[in-house]
Amino acid sequence: MKILILGADGYIGYPLTLHLLKLGHEVSCIDDESRRLKVKEIGSESLTPITRSLQRYNHLIKYSNFAGWYYANLNTNTSIIREIIRYANPECIIHLAEQPSAPYSMMNSLNSISTQYENVIGTLNLLWMIRENCPDTHLIKIGTMGEYGTPNCDIPEGFIPSTCIDMLQEEGKSFTLSCPMKGLLFPRSPGSFYHLSKVHDTLNIKFACDTWGLRSTDIMQGVLFGVRVTGEETDRELTRFDYDEYFGTVINRFCVQALIDHPLTIYGRGCQQRGFLPLKDSIQCLTIAVENPPANGEYRTWNQFENVYSINLLANMICRCAADLGIHSSIRHIQNPRTELDEHYYNPTCKTLFDLGYKPTTDIKNEISNLLMDILPYKDKIIKDVIMPKTMWR
Amino acid sequence: MKILILGADGYIGYPLTLHLLKLGHEVSCIDDESRRLKVKEIGSESLTPITRSLQRYNHLIKYSNFAGWYYANLNTNTSIIREIIRYANPECIIHLAEQPSAPYSMMNSLNSISTQYENVIGTLNLLWMIRENCPDTHLIKIGTMGEYGTPNCDIPEGFIPSTCIDMLQEEGKSFTLSCPMKGLLFPRSPGSFYHLSKVHDTLNIKFACDTWGLRSTDIMQGVLFGVRVTGEETDRELTRFDYDEYFGTVINRFCVQALIDHPLTIYGRGCQQRGFLPLKDSIQCLTIAVENPPANGEYRTWNQFENVYSINLLANMICRCAADLGIHSSIRHIQNPRTELDEHYYNPTCKTLFDLGYKPTTDIKNEISNLLMDILPYKDKIIKDVIMPKTMWR
Repeated sequence: MKILILGADGYIGYPLTLHLLKLGHEVSCIDDESRRLKVKEIGSESLTPITRSLQRYNHLIKYSNFAGWYYANLNTNTSIIREIIRYANPECIIHLAEQPSAPYSMMNSLNSISTQYENVIGTLNLLWMIRENCPDTHLIKIGTMGEYGTPNCDIPEGFIPSTCIDMLQEEGKSFTLSCPMKGLLFPRSPGSFYHLSKVHDTLNIKFACDTWGLRSTDIMQGVLFGVRVTGEETDRELTRFDYDEYFGTVINRFCVQALIDHPLTIYGRGCQQRGFLPLKDSIQCLTIAVENPPANGEYRTWNQFENVYSINLLANMICRCAADLGIHSSIRHIQNPRTELDEHYYNPTCKTLFDLGYKPTTDIKNEISNLLMDILPYKDKIIKDVIMPKTMWR
Repeated sequence: MKILILGADGYIGYPLTLHLLKLGHEVSCIDDESRRLKVKEIGSESLTPITRSLQRYNHLIKYSNFAGWYYANLNTNTSIIREIIRYANPECIIHLAEQPSAPYSMMNSLNSISTQYENVIGTLNLLWMIRENCPDTHLIKIGTMGEYGTPNCDIPEGFIPSTCIDMLQEEGKSFTLSCPMKGLLFPRSPGSFYHLSKVHDTLNIKFACDTWGLRSTDIMQGVLFGVRVTGEETDRELTRFDYDEYFGTVINRFCVQALIDHPLTIYGRGCQQRGFLPLKDSIQCLTIAVENPPANGEYRTWNQFENVYSINLLANMICRCAADLGIHSSIRHIQNPRTELDEHYYNPTCKTLFDLGYKPTTDIKNEISNLLMDILPYKDKIIKDVIMPKTMWR
């Protein structure tokens, strides 16, 4: 299949490119290296020693089905990207070219505005380009489980379902949310300007499908961790690994803290629950999306995670995994820089992907042990002062 | 009260400025004349002969409580607007500086993107400026009833109410939507990139209130019509009146068609129902919002319209009003350029405003007759070829 990946130089983008090339798909890539620049801007760098994009290019051209690597920005290089789309003529566009950090979007007005500009206006730009150049293309877009927030009731997959959502008893009242009408989105409660940008995207994409007949898979993804896909990546195939306050997701950050004998810093009481999945599961799920496109005109959304874990449970698990490697680690609760519920009901659905054949990596403890071993060789490169939170939501 | 109006040169902005000055409030004004420019760009102009902004300024300075008129754009003149806010030190900011047309936002990629850029990024910029310079200011923002779309169930005021929404029977199924949790927004189903921009605004504003403790009244306004507030406006006090495909709302457009002996062109079957209110009611309601601010940290939203009417009913009413003035008119149904339901259940709530003392102008027939007489003197200025729709949603 002809596939165009926007954001191919990123944490998901690069291993996904490799995976799809290995499966025989014809893959074209676009990136403007903004992730590299942003991480540099906040004083950090990838812990894994990723190669420059020219070296990545030189590695990828060994695949005869590799179709090109373009340096372009979705917001500012519209005419270039339009030409790439016309030339590549993709059956599937995977859009990973968004600013992915919640704290970065809460840092100051500039980063908040640039996040919504890059993400919302960028995606809107892409929707128009698809409409005008390749309306049959399947757009795969990464959203986040954080679009839903923690609404204190069961979370369906995107829409208010026609069957009642299971009841939640609260203060003796029952909660019912059901709708016989197709297409009414489940209400979103995003918790940062980044999460808001993803909700805005969701609404824009759904409208483009409903109105123009585009087709899209809009993925509400849980929190990623890890660096492996096959476990046999060469140096040139390694993806980036961020552990800083802004671009480091929680498990990645905890693992780095364990290695440097810094307490694992839990934001608040740690009873927050989220859906998680290892990077390799994300690659598996995105491949399922590529190979099972929705019908023309269909806006499809699903939730994408392996399981729900509390932050406390994960921190304890990481301490135990570290102990197995002879590394002593501890846990410290710090004031939560975010505005989020410390303790809440959380029961999101994840069904569509399993129906389509997703085989989750269920041994999360083993994955965390692998991750610790994967990053151990780079321990001395860790920049300690980028880890603790400096950006406060309030 | 010290009030800052953004978009003070517009259809609502100018009469609202005059009204608040007459009530004794200290009013500062910002506008970049983008409405004048956009209407010119699509080949039309205000039917009422509005004065240049310099003449408006010369009229307004007769009021000792008029505090200034500034030419500035919310997106591009951030530092100027920040200085104005610091200088004016407003207790209330009324934000009317958005691109207000749905068809304009569907015209092409450029106008679609500029609509979301101006509206969403502009409002986000304003939220940061309020947070950093005047966090106690009451932000009044005009949204639209179109944010809800036509979801085929009762529409509450912004949030999923704690009591059940009345049931709608459809295909033998019952609809229930209720939530004991405070703060879960009723799901939005906007019908254009313009309407989407208003939903994005709503989500951003609510988040800013919840997270930073700002306070805001986010108004879901129905469709406006008319040019009068007092009925005794002098030439210099007249507001603009647009009747073109893009900026002319439906009643205004029908009245112009009646005057030039053009059939009133109903989009589709005309069973669409919407909430409507005359301009003078909007001014009354906005004044209620100004004088009854929400608490600090409160995101308040209400629905703002006098009553719900179908397009067919309004067209017939306008024909009868025209006949009373000796003007013969007719009705023609044309293909609907929009993507919207032709026939649908529609039962939106409008309660908060009435509780706060809104006295609606219930004699809509009389209002329409007034409007026809108000614009009759300018009949010969009507540009006929801007009225019929050229922008198609699909």
